[in-house]
Order: sequence, then structure tokens, then C-alpha cells
Amino acid sequence: MSRQHPLQNVTASEIRRATAVVQGCAKARGSLKSIRFKYITLHEPPKALLMPYLDAESDGVPVDSRPFVPRLVAALYTDENTGEAFESIVSLDSETEVDVVKLLAGQQAPTDGGQPRQFIKTILNDPSVVEAIAKLKLPANAKIYCDPWSYGADKFSDIDTRAQIQAFLYACTSSHLEANQYAFPLPISPVLDVGENKIVRIDTLATGGTEDGLKHNTAPDAPLAHCRAKEYHPDLLDLPVRTDLKPLHVVQPEGPSFTVSDGNLVQWQKWRFRVGFHYREGLTIHDVRYDGRKTFYRLSMSEMTVPYGDPRAPYHRKQAFDIGDAGAGACSNVLGLGCDCLGLIHYFNGWLADENGEPEESRNAICMHEQDSGIGWKHSNRRTGVASITRGRTLILQNILTLMNYEYIFAWIFHQNGTVQFETRATGIVSTALIDDGKHSPWGNVVAPGVLAQNHQHLFCLRIDPMIDGVRNTLVQEDCVALPETDDENPFGNAWKVEKSIFEKSTFADAAPEKNRVFKIINESRTNRVSGNPVGYKLAPLPSQMLLAGKNSITRQRARFAEHHIWVTKYRDGDLWAGGKWTEQSVRETDGVFDYAARNENVKDEDIVIWHTLGMTHSATPEQFPVMGVETLSVSLKPADFFEYNPALDVPQSTQEINKSVQVSGSMCQSC
Amino acid sequence: MSRQHPLQNVTASEIRRATAVVQGCAKARGSLKSIRFKYITLHEPPKALLMPYLDAESDGVPVDSRPFVPRLVAALYTDENTGEAFESIVSLDSETEVDVVKLLAGQQAPTDGGQPRQFIKTILNDPSVVEAIAKLKLPANAKIYCDPWSYGADKFSDIDTRAQIQAFLYACTSSHLEANQYAFPLPISPVLDVGENKIVRIDTLATGGTEDGLKHNTAPDAPLAHCRAKEYHPDLLDLPVRTDLKPLHVVQPEGPSFTVSDGNLVQWQKWRFRVGFHYREGLTIHDVRYDGRKTFYRLSMSEMTVPYGDPRAPYHRKQAFDIGDAGAGACSNVLGLGCDCLGLIHYFNGWLADENGEPEESRNAICMHEQDSGIGWKHSNRRTGVASITRGRTLILQNILTLMNYEYIFAWIFHQNGTVQFETRATGIVSTALIDDGKHSPWGNVVAPGVLAQNHQHLFCLRIDPMIDGVRNTLVQEDCVALPETDDENPFGNAWKVEKSIFEKSTFADAAPEKNRVFKIINESRTNRVSGNPVGYKLAPLPSQMLLAGKNSITRQRARFAEHHIWVTKYRDGDLWAGGKWTEQSVRETDGVFDYAARNENVKDEDIVIWHTLGMTHSATPEQFPVMGVETLSVSLKPADFFEYNPALDVPQSTQEINKSVQVSGSMCQSC
Repeated sequence: MSRQHPLQNVTASEIRRATAVVQGCAKARGSLKSIRFKYITLHEPPKALLMPYLDAESDGVPVDSRPFVPRLVAALYTDENTGEAFESIVSLDSETEVDVVKLLAGQQAPTDGGQPRQFIKTILNDPSVVEAIAKLKLPANAKIYCDPWSYGADKFSDIDTRAQIQAFLYACTSSHLEANQYAFPLPISPVLDVGENKIVRIDTLATGGTEDGLKHNTAPDAPLAHCRAKEYHPDLLDLPVRTDLKPLHVVQPEGPSFTVSDGNLVQWQKWRFRVGFHYREGLTIHDVRYDGRKTFYRLSMSEMTVPYGDPRAPYHRKQAFDIGDAGAGACSNVLGLGCDCLGLIHYFNGWLADENGEPEESRNAICMHEQDSGIGWKHSNRRTGVASITRGRTLILQNILTLMNYEYIFAWIFHQNGTVQFETRATGIVSTALIDDGKHSPWGNVVAPGVLAQNHQHLFCLRIDPMIDGVRNTLVQEDCVALPETDDENPFGNAWKVEKSIFEKSTFADAAPEKNRVFKIINESRTNRVSGNPVGYKLAPLPSQMLLAGKNSITRQRARFAEHHIWVTKYRDGDLWAGGKWTEQSVRETDGVFDYAARNENVKDEDIVIWHTLGMTHSATPEQFPVMGVETLSVSLKPADFFEYNPALDVPQSTQEINKSVQVSGSMCQSC
Repeated sequence: MSRQHPLQNVTASEIRRATAVVQGCAKARGSLKSIRFKYITLHEPPKALLMPYLDAESDGVPVDSRPFVPRLVAALYTDENTGEAFESIVSLDSETEVDVVKLLAGQQAPTDGGQPRQFIKTILNDPSVVEAIAKLKLPANAKIYCDPWSYGADKFSDIDTRAQIQAFLYACTSSHLEANQYAFPLPISPVLDVGENKIVRIDTLATGGTEDGLKHNTAPDAPLAHCRAKEYHPDLLDLPVRTDLKPLHVVQPEGPSFTVSDGNLVQWQKWRFRVGFHYREGLTIHDVRYDGRKTFYRLSMSEMTVPYGDPRAPYHRKQAFDIGDAGAGACSNVLGLGCDCLGLIHYFNGWLADENGEPEESRNAICMHEQDSGIGWKHSNRRTGVASITRGRTLILQNILTLMNYEYIFAWIFHQNGTVQFETRATGIVSTALIDDGKHSPWGNVVAPGVLAQNHQHLFCLRIDPMIDGVRNTLVQEDCVALPETDDENPFGNAWKVEKSIFEKSTFADAAPEKNRVFKIINESRTNRVSGNPVGYKLAPLPSQMLLAGKNSITRQRARFAEHHIWVTKYRDGDLWAGGKWTEQSVRETDGVFDYAARNENVKDEDIVIWHTLGMTHSATPEQFPVMGVETLSVSLKPADFFEYNPALDVPQSTQEINKSVQVSGSMCQSC
């Protein structure tokens, strides 16, 4: 059997082999019977070994003649008896554990896919919870729903290091399985001790508003009496569905322009890259080359945090780290043909492990398709009336996650001209809290009767590991600055220049759109022959609002990556997690990008990594309930002095012969 | 014959009737034989008369029972003998001139479509120009190209109020009509006196670089010897066209979802609006209603300026006002089926007037089609595994302009959820200047041998005339601000609020993405029953870099609209021009948005207009030559507290039955 490509996703049989190895080691550590697997995922090889392999592959060296690269997986398990957790690195070559790390006190393993069901069962069956719910005098037919949430920030003086879960509850009298319980939030929140599997306490939730001086709890006897069903599922809509939307098909009679080979190797329009699927990051992109030239070693969504801005305890503890706490791969949707994607779709599947270490397929976790992106370039010659025009085509790789109420659509989009774009769309149902009838709050907006959508932020951190014509790169900040209005250099006052500053040491930087600030990742040893500048790619960072939480808050301390738009760090194997490796119930960002940057390492003409934090500050309106239309963020990595001319010059002209458009005329259109 | 709808575009016969009236008046003013028409375009009726008409129309009142609205056109002509210019307002009802304005000294009429040909002829045949070109020792077969440019800023101490044109010249030895002359810029610039039709002087252009201490003119004997052809036209490409891009068709078997009636009335997905075509603004959008509710009275691209940042005289005079100097309508492309648009396309034609006042069709000036915009909203129920999902569909109206070397694609995009988006794509060929062999410049980048693309900005000003549930509206600025970390209100440090401030007087404001600043246009007399907030629309302004030119420069003084992102003014009929009515060769923005705002009028609960300036600061790279891939800007007006729930809740679910997607399998895809 031929060896796997080092960037192949982990397979079902590899998961089984790893499970066997880990079970053996766990037995040796005295805890075979009670172990629970949290994840088994590819542990990527060191860059020092992988890069020569990828170069050999790129040079056409046959598989068997390429350098040896170890095949490793990472497996996290907990001992359910002792509460201890171990991450084991398993060599699939030797079928041995080559490294193991025991989680320290206060480091919590992430929640796995099987746990929420258990939490819900424990919580809803607990007599104290049953009693508290009974006191709410809900209708007899009310069904109770429970969303377990990671237990977020508290005061430093009051940190509880036991693994805990806070639950938010909802009640719904509809018997329909797709009823929207989020229109009926209950004013209590049970807290579960995960290790003990017991309720610690039941927190009471504030339901007051500005009208009563923001009292923390003014829930009346029948707290949900003013709430009303507000449904999104088509079976339950209280309004007719639009009938005037005509079908729109994307047809590619000659098939797609891409090819997929060797499982995850994609080639399209001069691009060549590998598609990864990781338990934690979901979709990852590797070894990205354009026309044979190196551009990016690895692209991924490293971490995100969603802190809420309501200060009324325990709402301050709502702060999700959806990558680190839950796993983008683990929360991936099964994408549906014709539902999530339009046109000619290729799906990539992934493999995860269940709590017993058994492989579990993540079917259609990633979809890939082409899209028309409108005019790519155009010029009309006014002298002759001749127009030269191309349309842009993009290749889109998409991964959709559901995290209880909310969804994120992450996409990496490749353009014909060497641009790589990242887009995220946030959709799903906003997290809701109860508010008394007729009241309003500075901590959020009322989006349905009795439903407060609390102010919150979504802060994402992209990890960009470049290899612009090689791994030794440099980050440059470029600002456009006006010159002083002096008679010698700027006599007419119109002059401006580009001011460049090179980053010498690992650090952070901020967006400055008022200076038209861009960051260029350059290769100082390669010069563009035309411009005389070093070859590079540029990133115009999104100037989103950064984390609003105060400097002393745990909310901020555990998400330092969300303090600045840009970070530049020196590459080290394993430096993958902007918010630190263990985010579940963390109180400080430990071993995250803040720490990587704080090493103060040389980053000029070195193997560097760029991190970009971007986000949305979200004060919801009724338009965003009961389900929120997509809110989209997008950022691009564009070649700048990388090519000697427009790399999309050779895209075929846009013609009616190829495009077969149809002019709408009388028969199709009322009295045009 | 039934009367035209007041918002119908001007027709050919109306142009002929207006021409006859103006000719009569010109004769009376003694200048019939020598008059030259610059434009004839619709002069929109006063809002006080039009609004009741539109309301009657909306209420279903038959055409003949609606209030009378005068039908007016504006016609600008010059007396070629005296150099005087008059704008005449003609009533088509009475066939009389109802108003006339004579342009003041220093106010120049815009360039009309016929003038560039005349300018080019005069310039290239002038003996002094012929002699200057001969001195450049170009190859014998070199063909000379001439681009007339508006004569831009100078020093206030040296203002020349004669109408002038500066020309930039290029030489090209290719005999192919589509050869790209911009790769061969000549180092001389003739200046033409328009009135006299004579060359005033020939400016010498700097070609030096940092290497020679930025000397202003170091042109050698054979200044173009180091320039090389760099072509974009498919017949001339020096590289093979890509063969691996497969056709992609957009097919709507049941036709489009829109209807067009009464010439320019569009209805689509609860939207209803009129499409205008104006000589100056090109595409305009009027009387925009969603589900019968008023949203926007008028939407348009009011003005733009493109100042260059090279201080070496006469380059400081490069500053185009493409709307005011040339006219977006006048420069509109004839859009081609299957070239500019994909799918089912409806075209709108417009009518312009030639120099004799004869109607001239602007065929296919505006295209309209639907696009799929990916997932609109989605939620997966983790308990049942059921996904509810809709795709977004958009309706796009597009107008493309060519201004000599450059093109702009302006689009208004309607979304199903009440959002209106404006997008501009800049493409075409960057303006080029000669630079000596091997040299570099702080004033731009070398994008091809001998070709300097000078630093420049594109600053656009959108005019947004709202009628959010009525014309009396108010602008509110909203910032998201962290609370101090105090024990009483913010004990955990996570709290933040939305800080609102209302604009009382007409003024400007700036984007502040670090505060997540948005501007809401609200109707204070209408409350959203769910949220309790006034109904509104929000605009998250693009935080683009504003005008870089110095405070004392003419560059800045004539484009004050480009100093701030947001302006709010009180509505007055005719306040349409952000950069002032007469921009050609202007030295100060007169009667532009800066002046409208300076009136310090009440804008709270008044009929107001919002202006948004957005732009690109452009330091080009070789990737942007010989033709530039689209650089895109986009901004949206989104309902905020306008609806009581997600207005796209009733969009049909996205299903394979409707979408007919195709899964790529083995036969289409290499070894998937």
C-alpha cells in the first residue's frame, strides 16, 4: 500500500489504529475502562520535514522517492474517573505514542459532540431544576429546551476551575419539532459540574429594563405570558411564502473547470492546493501555489470569540470560543446538494472520532464549486468602439458550522488573478434572553415580544502562513501620507507618498483606513523586474471594532488576539491557536497569538505567520429575528508586485457565444 | 396622447421639441447660428409637486386623475462666437423657456461628446505640437494618440479662467487599431485654449526618478526607447489564452422574477421603483418602495473626483470630475448581451442630445438582471438535524462608463430583505506617464518598462435622498462604546452600550469603524412596535481614506465633498451636485455639498439628504497593467427597526427540486 500524502485527511482506518494505540497507553496509565475520546485528528508534520516533501512533489519527484514524512495524529481523551485529560501524539508509522501531554489543573478539554445530550439530560432531570421550572407556572404542555453553554468569564477573585457548564432554557408549547424555542427564553440558568455530573446551583436571570431602573430580576409570576411564537421553519410560517421568485440554475454543460485528484489535491485556473479538514479548524488550505509559484503554506480560521455585553450576572459569562471550545470540524453541517450550493458541486468528506474512538464520517463537510463573479476587467476603446472584456470566475470552498442557535459560513475563495479571499457569513438565530413586557434595555434590543437580543461581538482570527516565493518573508506596513504644503517639494499641495515600515520583531499592528493602510507580505530576496519592488502579497485589513471588554476583565484576558487587527509572529510548529490551545473555561489566553508575539523574535526575512482579527459588533434589530439574514465579512490577499503584469490577462474574452445570455423581451416581461 | 410619467426618461421627440424652443430663445438672444448643445436632459419636477403625484400613483389613482406635474428639461448650450453659455429650463407643456441661467466668468460648461475629436484634431495638427513631437525622434511608423484632459487645479495666485484642455500624448508603432498606446507615454503635454481653438503652450513632462534626485526633466534623445508593447486585446496578447475555463450559464427556465412596465417601472420581490437615466448621473433610482412602504425618494452617484498625487508641474493639474466634467450618462457604454451581463438581461435605453440638439440614443445604457447571492439565511436544528435554508437573490442595475483610459461600473443592487446596496468597480487602463529607463519614483510605481502609474485617488459621492415611511427623517449617529470598569454598573468589565446622537443642523460626520459607527436614517414619528425604536435604515459608511491634497490646494478646494464621509443636508430642489454644478476647470467647490451643509439648516425631522463619500487610494502595481482587474467598493443601506421581523422569512426554501444542482462525480472530475 502506498503511503498517504502527508496532507491527506485522517482516514477511518487511521482513526481505528490510533484508537488502539491510545487505548494501550491509557491502559498502561491505569485508565482504560473509563476513557472518553474528545477528538482524533491529523497532527500535521513539522514544516522542516513537510516543506522538502512538498517541493519534491512540486518538482515531479515520484511519491516513493520523496523524503520521509512521519504520519501522526493527535488524540485527546479524558479519564472519566479521575477527570484527568491527556493529549497523545500517535505515530501511525510505528503505531506508538510518540508524545503525551497531561492537561494542567484549570485547563479544560473542549466539549465533545456527545456531551450536550448528556448535559441536557442531567440538567432537565435534576429535581432542583424541575422545581425551579415548576415555579415559573408555564402552560402544562410547555416543552423545555436546554442549551448548554461553555462557562465563561468571571471575576479573577472568584475563579472556579472545576469544569462547568451553564445552561440557558427555553419553553415552547408547540408540538412541532421545528418550533422556535428561542422566542420563549426562561429566566433561570442551571450550572452543571461536569466532573460530578451534578447541578451546582440555579442562577436567576435578570428580566428588567430601563423602565424599572434596570433591576436585575423582576420576573412576574407568569414570565412568558407576553412572549409569542415567531417561527422560521416553512411548515410553521404565519405568512405566505413568496410565489414570484423564479428558479435560477447554474449550468456548466462541459463540466467544472477544476479537477480533484489524490483525494484532496485541487487544481483550477493556475491554482494548485490541498484541502484539509481538521477537527478544530474545519476547512484548512495547504501548499497553495499559483502557476507553480509558492504563495501560502497554510490558511485557516484559527479562533473566534463571541463575548456578550450584558453586565448582569451571570450573563457576563456568555463568551463562546467556537473553534477552541467546540471545533469547527466537529460542528460542520452535512451540506446538501441544491440546498447549500448552486451549480456543479464537489464535496469533501472528513472523518472525526466519537467518544469511543470509533471513526464517524463528517459527510459533505466541505463543498467546492465555481461562481461567476461579474466583470473581471474591461476596457472600451473610445476611438474604435471596441470593448475588451473578461468575466471573473471564482472557486469557492465552503464549510458551515452550527453552534446551537447560531451558524457560521466560512469560505475560502480563489480568483483567477492570484487573489485569495476569505469570507464569513453569520446567520442562524441570535441568542435570546427574557425581558419583561413592555420594557427596554441598554444591554440589547427587543427583537420579539419578551425577547431581548443582547449586544455581542463576533471576533474571528484568521491565520495566514505565507510562503511568497519561499518561506522567508517580511511584513511591511504601508500608509499613504500627504506631504506638507511646501513650495519646494509640494508647491501645489496635491502630493502624497507611500510610507513603508518593516516589522523587525514579532508584534501586533492595527488597521488604519484613514491612512489607507495595507500590510504587504514580501520576499526581500525576490525583486519584481518591472517595478523593482520585492515580490509580495497585500492584505488590506478590515478595520473592525476590536474587543470592547475592559482591560481587567477575564473576557478580555482570555481573548487577547481580539485586541489588535494584525499580529506577526515567527513560525513555530504547533503555533496554531490564536486564543491558546485550551479555551474551554479559560481565564487567560495562554500560549495564544499574544504570547507568540510577546517572544519578541526576529520576523524580518524569516519564516513568519500573519494573523488577522476581524469582526462584527452586533446590536440586533427585529429584522434579525426569528432567523438572521447573513451578515458578511470579507477580506482578500492580493498579489502586489508578485506578477509582472495582470495575471488574468489570458482569461478568455466574455462573449455571447460562450455565455449564452438571454435578452428579456415582451413575452417574458410585462410591456417592456 | 397620455402624458409621460414625471419620472419617465426624456424621449427623442421631447429632445427635438426642447431643441426647437431653445433655438428660438437663442435666436432672440442673438446667437442662433453658432450655438452648440452640451446636453438636453430631464429637469426633475420639484419634490413638492412630484411627491403627491407619486403618492396618488401608489394609492392606485388613475394617471389622468393624478395632480399635474410640469414636464421640464434642462438644455445647456454655448454660443461658439461669444463663448457665453446658457442653461435653459424648457417646459414641454407650454413649449417655452421657463428659466435661463447664464454661466458666470470662470464657470465652464462641461466637455461634450463631440469635443474630444475636435480637440485631438487641433492639437495633433498644430505645427508647434508637430515640431515638439519630431524632436522626440520617434520611429517613423509611430502613430500619435492624444487624450484631452480637463484642465485641473493650479495655484490660486495663477488661476487662468479661459476654458482650456491639457492633452496627454502617446505613441505606438503597432498598426493594430486595438494596440495599447498607454505603454508609450510621451514627455510633452500641449495645452489648448478651447475658445480660441489654439495651442497656448506645450508643457514638458518630468521623466526622472529618485535615482537622479527627482529632476523634473531628464528625457533623453529617444525617450521611448526602453518602452515595450504590453497589450490587452485578445488579438495582440503575447501569451496563450487559458483553455481550461469551462462555460458557465445562468438559466431561468421560467423567465425573470421581475417585471418592467410603463417604460421604467420595475417590480421585483416586494420592491417597486423607477429607473432613471440622466445625462450627468447616468443611472438614477426613484420612488423606491418595499411592500408599499416608502424607503428612498432618489438614489444616485452625484460626483466623483480623481486627483493625482504627483507634484511635478503640470501633473498636479490631473484631477478628473468624471460626473460633472463629462457626464456618467454621456459616457455610458453600449452594454452587450453575453459580454457585460450573464443570464436573463433587461436593457434600458436612454436618449441624449448631440451638439445640434438632435436626439442620440444611448442604447443598452443600463442592464438589469437577477443574481444568486449565496445563502440568504440558514439554521440547522441540532436536535432534529433539520436545516431550514433560503438562498439570496439580488436584482442588479448596472451602468458602465468609459472615460478615455478608465472605466467605472456602477451598480445598484436590491436584496430580498429590504437592503439596497451600491457597488462600484473600477477597471480599465491606469493613466500612465513616462519614466526614464531603470528609474523609480515616489510619485507612483513603474508598472511596465518606462511606464509610471502615478499615485491617485478615486473619491465618489453617493447622494441618498431618503423617505423612510415619509420624507420627514432624522439622521442619528450610533457608536458602540465600552462602559468604565466600575463595580456598580460593570462589575465584570464586559459591558458596552450603543451611544446615539442626533443631528440637529446640516453638517458633516466621519466614519469611525473603531467605534463600529453606523448612521441611521430614522422617522421619529413612526415606532417599531416590537423594539420600540423609531423605524429606520442604517448605513455603515466605508471608512475610506479621504482626500489627501492639502488644505490650501485647489485640488482640495474644488472637492470639499471628499473631506468627510458623511454629509447631512436639508432637501432643496436642485441640490444634486456634491462637487457643485460647474466642475469643469473649477477652482472652488461652489454650490456643492459643502455649501449646502454650511447653510446650518435644521435637519431633525425634516426632509433631508444624506451624502456618503467613499473611495480608493491607488498606488498601482504591475498587476494592474496593461488593464486593471476590477477594484470593488460596496456599501449598503439596510433596514434597522424598519420591519418587525426578518423580511426575507417568506423567501422559499432552497431545495434541489428548484435549484437542480449537480454533484461532480468521477466522469466529470479526475479521480475524485
